[in-house]
Amino acid sequence: MGEFEALEQVRARVQSRGDRVILPSGDDAAVVRCDGLAVTTVDAFVEGVHFRLATTSMRDLGHRCLAATVSDLAAMGAEPGEAYFAVGLPPQFGERELLELTDGAEALASELGMTICGGDLTGSPELFLAVTAVGHAERDEHLARREGARPGDRVGVTGVLGGSAAGRLLLERKAGGLDPELGEELLERHLCPRPLVDAGRALARSGVTAMLDVSDGIASDAQRLAECSGVLIEIDLPRLPVDEGVDVVARAAGVDPVELAAGGGEDYELLFTAPAEAGQQVAAAALAAGSTVTWIGQVRKGVGVRLLAEGGAARPLHGWDHLAQPGSEPSP
Amino acid sequence: MGEFEALEQVRARVQSRGDRVILPSGDDAAVVRCDGLAVTTVDAFVEGVHFRLATTSMRDLGHRCLAATVSDLAAMGAEPGEAYFAVGLPPQFGERELLELTDGAEALASELGMTICGGDLTGSPELFLAVTAVGHAERDEHLARREGARPGDRVGVTGVLGGSAAGRLLLERKAGGLDPELGEELLERHLCPRPLVDAGRALARSGVTAMLDVSDGIASDAQRLAECSGVLIEIDLPRLPVDEGVDVVARAAGVDPVELAAGGGEDYELLFTAPAEAGQQVAAAALAAGSTVTWIGQVRKGVGVRLLAEGGAARPLHGWDHLAQPGSEPSP
Repeated sequence: MGEFEALEQVRARVQSRGDRVILPSGDDAAVVRCDGLAVTTVDAFVEGVHFRLATTSMRDLGHRCLAATVSDLAAMGAEPGEAYFAVGLPPQFGERELLELTDGAEALASELGMTICGGDLTGSPELFLAVTAVGHAERDEHLARREGARPGDRVGVTGVLGGSAAGRLLLERKAGGLDPELGEELLERHLCPRPLVDAGRALARSGVTAMLDVSDGIASDAQRLAECSGVLIEIDLPRLPVDEGVDVVARAAGVDPVELAAGGGEDYELLFTAPAEAGQQVAAAALAAGSTVTWIGQVRKGVGVRLLAEGGAARPLHGWDHLAQPGSEPSP
Repeated sequence: MGEFEALEQVRARVQSRGDRVILPSGDDAAVVRCDGLAVTTVDAFVEGVHFRLATTSMRDLGHRCLAATVSDLAAMGAEPGEAYFAVGLPPQFGERELLELTDGAEALASELGMTICGGDLTGSPELFLAVTAVGHAERDEHLARREGARPGDRVGVTGVLGGSAAGRLLLERKAGGLDPELGEELLERHLCPRPLVDAGRALARSGVTAMLDVSDGIASDAQRLAECSGVLIEIDLPRLPVDEGVDVVARAAGVDPVELAAGGGEDYELLFTAPAEAGQQVAAAALAAGSTVTWIGQVRKGVGVRLLAEGGAARPLHGWDHLAQPGSEPSP
């Protein structure tokens, strides 16, 4: 199968959604109507670095790569619009693998109301994907940045943490003895994450001062938010909302569950700051968009992150990433 | 050097241009003002497939990858706006190589008035780049597509052809005996192509019916235009405008210069069709934007491409790509 036949088949499997897309894939470039602000992010994924084919199906891979990229749009509070895929396909991969990848991405695009608008396909010694996701917003005030956290703000996070890291440990057979249904949920959390698009839009408009998504683990993501805002972020580790089953997996793997919740990435929850007086409306807005909020810390003067154990003593993270290979690489 | 320090240094070397970019690289996503139409294209480049590091400096690579991607915007007639780079960097590459790559891309971005707005950096066994370029247009009528060629139209091309292929043969030491200055020009043509942004905008607004850029060689690019428009394109090979020095290089390599002009890619000239009566205004518009136009064929009923030799006999291309490795891979 040549490149052009392959792309024809990919095009036949993806749909235009909404009324923005004037010219989808197939010409020199895609043409999309855009009145206001375009919010654009690019993420790259490489076999052996971000995923292992031994434990990831092509369908899950298509889903995961799009989800991780769109999570950046969610963290801005933008409305997801279009996605573009650049794919490097090794010689042993053929039409079937490419179409499975497409189906996984297209299924999530359909859930999110997005259009896969084009991309590029090339041969490559290693499998890689580079995903460009474009979101839309009417006004800058509707978007949340990483800067803007102020001393006195509270620190909040949506949903629960550690589930993706626990799922990865299960995949790597580093843990066992779990209720099968719970195990499935953790695997799903790792393999098929959902970007929190609705919660992101609701939070960005409800008074948060800074926001990003939890892609590398809340400890390092909080560090980035702290640096961008020029503040010190304290996180009370005992308050972290830990996903169900994480404690069992962690114990079986010989690590503290808090390490998975604070140091494990790819949960794609949203981490944000808000003035104390806005706390109630922020939490209500997130809840209306389907996400719970847990207040896990406070912003102080200084720069950096301080993790606090029970009783308020500073505590380092020991890291658990050596347990799972390949490591989850930070992606900016 | 960690990924974040590296990205800090990259950010320090790129500039925002124009007043569209509200939030450049450094947050979850870039924010760009966009009133009208966004024109978006993605191209991937892989070592050993699209370039060889043995014959390409990192600086030239940054330039070439951006140029090739922006050429798709030129072929639509869009105004180049923003670029995003996803880079997979092998372990033996460090800060110096990354910054050279950045400098090459940034120098061209500056020429074109573009802003490098963000991207992603990851480790990878092989060097690869995926470049997303976004252009802007006020109205759809200002853009040229690949469909739209009609029987009776004339076929035109800007500039001269075969120079990039000849430059590649020189690089690969498949030819010699050339005047050094001419050799330098051909190498420059291959290593540092210029996307014809101004000519593309002028042509798209001057009455062309279909257009694309010559990235894979005029024979295969004409085939694509013919398929998108549902027409037969005849190209009179003796009329092809052949770049200076191509004949000498071709003879030294033992191929017909026409093979390089019609079958060699990466010239990034523009191939288009226009009604006969619009010919004069189309050529004048291109000339005012700095590009000559040569009329090289005609559109007929049917589908496909017919290459005509002296006297009008059909002629196959023999291909010359086996002379140069790695081959230039078609990129849609």
